[in-house]
Amino acid sequence: MPRDSAATQARILDAATVEFSTHGLAGARVDRIAARAEANKQLIYAYFQNKENLFDSTLETNIELLLDAVPFDATDLPGYVQALFDFGRNHPELVRLARWHSLERPGGFMQLPRAAESTKRKMEALAAAQANGAVDNTLAPDLLLELLLALAHAHPGLETPDLPIDAERGQAQRDALAFAVARLTTPTARPPSVVVAALD
Amino acid sequence: MPRDSAATQARILDAATVEFSTHGLAGARVDRIAARAEANKQLIYAYFQNKENLFDSTLETNIELLLDAVPFDATDLPGYVQALFDFGRNHPELVRLARWHSLERPGGFMQLPRAAESTKRKMEALAAAQANGAVDNTLAPDLLLELLLALAHAHPGLETPDLPIDAERGQAQRDALAFAVARLTTPTARPPSVVVAALD
Repeated sequence: MPRDSAATQARILDAATVEFSTHGLAGARVDRIAARAEANKQLIYAYFQNKENLFDSTLETNIELLLDAVPFDATDLPGYVQALFDFGRNHPELVRLARWHSLERPGGFMQLPRAAESTKRKMEALAAAQANGAVDNTLAPDLLLELLLALAHAHPGLETPDLPIDAERGQAQRDALAFAVARLTTPTARPPSVVVAALD
Repeated sequence: MPRDSAATQARILDAATVEFSTHGLAGARVDRIAARAEANKQLIYAYFQNKENLFDSTLETNIELLLDAVPFDATDLPGYVQALFDFGRNHPELVRLARWHSLERPGGFMQLPRAAESTKRKMEALAAAQANGAVDNTLAPDLLLELLLALAHAHPGLETPDLPIDAERGQAQRDALAFAVARLTTPTARPPSVVVAALD
């Protein structure tokens, strides 16, 4: 791809990230993306065909950040979940982009090879940590990972971007996450009150 | 309100629930709502002024179901979270409606008096269960409630309404939830590995 073309496409995708994270797919206007990118609207259609495809490309452009900006650490799961919480606080536009995509292009994200690979790597790291006794092994890695991610995305503050962030409350939520993840993942000699077989 | 008018408004809100849960606010078409409700489009604007207001009214119509269809039971929190999971499985349209609303009318839901009241009642029940030793009291009730709700809404299956539900996987997720909630809420004599002060 010629350098100018690559630079223009990158500008379009940056502008599209802002537009889609604010308005979603149905609410986004290609006119506004063109104006923000200082690009011609016809050129956007030439590169990306239609608004749906531009939306998918915008998600793919940000996929590294969404999946792996926070390195997965199976040896410090409370710290990992706190770091995801912090990342979401610092990048509400990416959280919103992913949420819009899950509603407007359901199922699309996890079918991307890049997403499947990242999930597989995380599950393998969890399984290894369970095998060596660092992490409680009651739950199968896929079930445990789902719950960890749900906890990391627990906080509704993300959905009210115009409200001021309450720093004290944010710190209490962050501490609560570490506590919950430690409870869930620390191996214990006590029999759990509900027994769940690990699935292979 | 005359009976015919109430019946027509109810039909419009039923049709709007389907339209908004499928397409969100920006993607919804008042034409389609009018056709489905067998109502006149002008009448919809006469009753609800504009699409934004109709969206808010649709959420309010369903608010009892969203907040309290599953009775809160502080004496059986694993069962409560499992029942919320089941409700979401059985009513994906309501889960989607609430998610669209949180993106397109951010902050609006929790500001409704009905939502604030329901949350207050749940926190009071949690605080009482903590006070009598039935529920672990490490986390303040508001922080604990947030985490319980996040776990109940953990599962991405809701966002892929066209995929068949995998019953075996659903059962494993349901069991995993009960395990996680029991770990989080069962009082323990062991010091937690991360200490979080309960906030008043």
